Amino acid sequence: MQRVALIGLGLMGSGMARNLLKAGFPLVVYNRSLEKGLPLRDAGAEVADTPRQAAEGADVVISMVADDGASRHIWLGEAGALEGARPGMVLIECSTLSTRWVRELAGRAQDMGCQFLDAPVTGSQPQAEAGELTFLVGGDARTLEQVEPILKAMGRTIHHLGPTGSGATMKLINNLLVGVQAAALAEALHLAESAGLDTSQVLDILSNGAVGSAVVRTKGPKMLSGDYSTQFALRWMHKDMTYALDEGVERTVPLPTVAAAREIYRMALARGLTDADFAAVVEVLRGA
Amino acid sequence: MQRVALIGLGLMGSGMARNLLKAGFPLVVYNRSLEKGLPLRDAGAEVADTPRQAAEGADVVISMVADDGASRHIWLGEAGALEGARPGMVLIECSTLSTRWVRELAGRAQDMGCQFLDAPVTGSQPQAEAGELTFLVGGDARTLEQVEPILKAMGRTIHHLGPTGSGATMKLINNLLVGVQAAALAEALHLAESAGLDTSQVLDILSNGAVGSAVVRTKGPKMLSGDYSTQFALRWMHKDMTYALDEGVERTVPLPTVAAAREIYRMALARGLTDADFAAVVEVLRGA
Amino acid sequence: MQRVALIGLGLMGSGMARNLLKAGFPLVVYNRSLEKGLPLRDAGAEVADTPRQAAEGADVVISMVADDGASRHIWLGEAGALEGARPGMVLIECSTLSTRWVRELAGRAQDMGCQFLDAPVTGSQPQAEAGELTFLVGGDARTLEQVEPILKAMGRTIHHLGPTGSGATMKLINNLLVGVQAAALAEALHLAESAGLDTSQVLDILSNGAVGSAVVRTKGPKMLSGDYSTQFALRWMHKDMTYALDEGVERTVPLPTVAAAREIYRMALARGLTDADFAAVVEVLRGA
Amino acid sequence: MQRVALIGLGLMGSGMARNLLKAGFPLVVYNRSLEKGLPLRDAGAEVADTPRQAAEGADVVISMVADDGASRHIWLGEAGALEGARPGMVLIECSTLSTRWVRELAGRAQDMGCQFLDAPVTGSQPQAEAGELTFLVGGDARTLEQVEPILKAMGRTIHHLGPTGSGATMKLINNLLVGVQAAALAEALHLAESAGLDTSQVLDILSNGAVGSAVVRTKGPKMLSGDYSTQFALRWMHKDMTYALDEGVERTVPLPTVAAAREIYRMALARGLTDADFAAVVEVLRGA
Repeated sequence: MQRVALIGLGLMGSGMARNLLKAGFPLVVYNRSLEKGLPLRDAGAEVADTPRQAAEGADVVISMVADDGASRHIWLGEAGALEGARPGMVLIECSTLSTRWVRELAGRAQDMGCQFLDAPVTGSQPQAEAGELTFLVGGDARTLEQVEPILKAMGRTIHHLGPTGSGATMKLINNLLVGVQAAALAEALHLAESAGLDTSQVLDILSNGAVGSAVVRTKGPKMLSGDYSTQFALRWMHKDMTYALDEGVERTVPLPTVAAAREIYRMALARGLTDADFAAVVEVLRGA
Repeated sequence: MQRVALIGLGLMGSGMARNLLKAGFPLVVYNRSLEKGLPLRDAGAEVADTPRQAAEGADVVISMVADDGASRHIWLGEAGALEGARPGMVLIECSTLSTRWVRELAGRAQDMGCQFLDAPVTGSQPQAEAGELTFLVGGDARTLEQVEPILKAMGRTIHHLGPTGSGATMKLINNLLVGVQAAALAEALHLAESAGLDTSQVLDILSNGAVGSAVVRTKGPKMLSGDYSTQFALRWMHKDMTYALDEGVERTVPLPTVAAAREIYRMALARGLTDADFAAVVEVLRGA
Repeated sequence: MQRVALIGLGLMGSGMARNLLKAGFPLVVYNRSLEKGLPLRDAGAEVADTPRQAAEGADVVISMVADDGASRHIWLGEAGALEGARPGMVLIECSTLSTRWVRELAGRAQDMGCQFLDAPVTGSQPQAEAGELTFLVGGDARTLEQVEPILKAMGRTIHHLGPTGSGATMKLINNLLVGVQAAALAEALHLAESAGLDTSQVLDILSNGAVGSAVVRTKGPKMLSGDYSTQFALRWMHKDMTYALDEGVERTVPLPTVAAAREIYRMALARGLTDADFAAVVEVLRGA
Repeated sequence: MQRVALIGLGLMGSGMARNLLKAGFPLVVYNRSLEKGLPLRDAGAEVADTPRQAAEGADVVISMVADDGASRHIWLGEAGALEGARPGMVLIECSTLSTRWVRELAGRAQDMGCQFLDAPVTGSQPQAEAGELTFLVGGDARTLEQVEPILKAMGRTIHHLGPTGSGATMKLINNLLVGVQAAALAEALHLAESAGLDTSQVLDILSNGAVGSAVVRTKGPKMLSGDYSTQFALRWMHKDMTYALDEGVERTVPLPTVAAAREIYRMALARGLTDADFAAVVEVLRGA
């Protein structure tokens, strides 16, 4: 069985690690703050002190971190995972990153004779824990085949989108729509409350109508109740829309509604809603 | 059985008229261009020469026209329906209109001793023909009770939102979300095609994911195929977003993503896509 | 000498009235709250109880009020000025209004045999008091000639833009640019302060550079000092941008930066900055 | 006298080089396409084959290139200028770059014991040729003092904004306002032409009014005449607004009108107006 290293033990990474252990993969994990690795050590994983150490014995190295900066750090930083890489090793980036950085990283991997897949996921903590993530994969089909059992241990569905970077782009396309749908929902619900409508009824009608997506159904109640317990932090939504806009710049694609929505999320950041669920964007509209 | 007058025989009004006839309501219809009334005359409706004439013998007058201007014209214009109104009569506005105008019209109706409901619908031509519309109703509950059999002849679901204007506001809230979701989808799909992704696959993933609303599922294929045969004309989407923004102004509710999206629809109007399906908004992004 | 009626004694109207008196024009004034007329009565003006009464003896009736609603009220409301109008009288609208309403009002005036000019002004209170306003006039050239001495008593420059409504449109074009320049300046200065730059130096460089307009030079210091003593209230800036966007809708002209800026002004309204100078828009960006 | 190396001989760099020669500075120049150096060789400059070679004998190295990528290439690329740097040398970046890259570059310079100034300029080709540029400088005051004679040879005014990166930020602040003012002017002028106004008169009034900046006075005529001969290419305006938005992201400053305007410039890029003057942005609004 392939030996797997998993770097990044946030809400997502921890769930993914548990499912790898359940499926019987020999696993070494790394996280910046080591205490997040302890429960996994109890469950049978080895805990490495550095990304390099995690990578050294592995056949497949998976990363699940916050953003381009974190990804650059764990792969290329001091005692980074690429220092522990060997030709033939498969590197899988599951983080949501800019396509530009993913391509640069893939190039570095290739220089070292490694295979590389970008494989960001949709689904959040519950899906990560249940092993029901969806993988959006870019890279070589044969490489994907090689690691399919590993991905299947963590997720239910695997979409192969095309060459390197395609998975990253697909993820950004998905998340830009999430971000705009939620921002527009915030505007709609605040208009409803300002007009004195019964907002539960309004949300119910929207949820069952033409615009009724999971975003509407899950974020609407949070906006109405003001319960911003975090499923997906506003800072990451802002980051994903930023990466999407960067890709628009690179490919000369105008993204005017994304651009408008991103500024509202940044207004929310400026108000300190950084770590709240991104449903909190509605607070910007509510004024004081 | 109540005698019904129906004014406005576009795609929606014609379907509604047929269902009223099927349900056995004595029906008189009016349309600006009279030939649209002919098939309904064959089906048993009386055809009036003016809105006033249509209203004169009726217990309930229903309007289904394009915008505030058309509504004002058929109710208050020369030989308008209000000239034919009698105390006790019920007037039902099913058009998608500005809340401001709906309230003014309701006031005029009240001045004449009439009951008034704003009852815009969701659903488009197929639902109108199948009698499966959803009514979003504002106004007095007892008035609604009184005309419920009539609405039930044309639709499946009736939501009573509150006092006069609530139905209009609910409809605008719905449509502003439709407009933003479609504009953002256009941006997302054009980014996908510019990135060289398989756009059918992308749309499939989006349709089955967190953003997968009926808007995404029905407008996406039109954007990809370039088949803009009209289900809902771009001019009316632009109009509805304009009415929603007007309500934002009136209620001091900021609507930044709606504002951004409306301008893109107006760019599409400036390019002559006025009568195309609003999915054609993607053409603005595609440049030349 | 022509007898003049002036309706609306706000900051602008009061200054205009004084200059008409100075120039020797027999003057009757009207204001909703009558006490604003008292100082002018002391200065020689007659004070009317209603717009109609003000208009009755006059050759020329001038209106200087807040918005379409106020204009409609003083011309067409109960005891409105048009009730006191006679054929041959010249009606001059100096308020900043929507082109649509100006055209409707001009039609009403014409129906009564009156001449009509839309003649909004640029300049604010100091210019009104000093008789140094600039008039942006739409309407018939001969009518303008007839009242030129009156306008010259209040202003220095008269631009004749074309037929009815042209003055109104020109004013909205001017003010939409004022609104966007100020909103962008707010963004720029807040970026400067967030970057730790010396904001006085930054404003100085901007004021003397390619973007150095009077808007930059007069609004910048207010934004930096937080002194929002009102030269032009934020609510009116929001109103003017709304009228400009309405004209964009009517003429199928996309106005994306105006649309974005208007929503920021509305955010400021939602925070209660309604009567502050519109320079206060910067507070929306400053977050908490 | 200090020996100067100047890298980048575009419209700006060529003018700057001539003025350095006029002032008697020993000068070596480098440009990617070498033929741009020939006229300067005839005028007394030495022409280097690589940035490194240019830097090797110099006391002061000046860069004037297009964007972050070009700057990175000439400083850090193969045979880059930093390879020719010696401790004590002064490096001056006059290009308009992102603050983030400027800070990274300054760090690299410091690592080598060099002094670093970011000193982007305002003014375009005519000012570069006339030696009338304005320098916006970030970095150490003593370093600036050291090179002041060199800057004075090329420009008239030197603003010292603060530590490293301050000049870059100031330049982006300036250019974001240029970009928004021009985009809003395009909207205003297209509204004027759609309303049938005399656009020359409109522009004249705007130019002499509250919004009358140099941007309005110089870009307005280009928009009206359709003469987009390039003073500043649309691609660079889009780039500068992108860098400004990046800085907004980094400093959590919302920039909603900048965001809206940038997307319009990108629409213009999507239509192939890449190398036209940025006044061509008006074409996006004109539709077909």
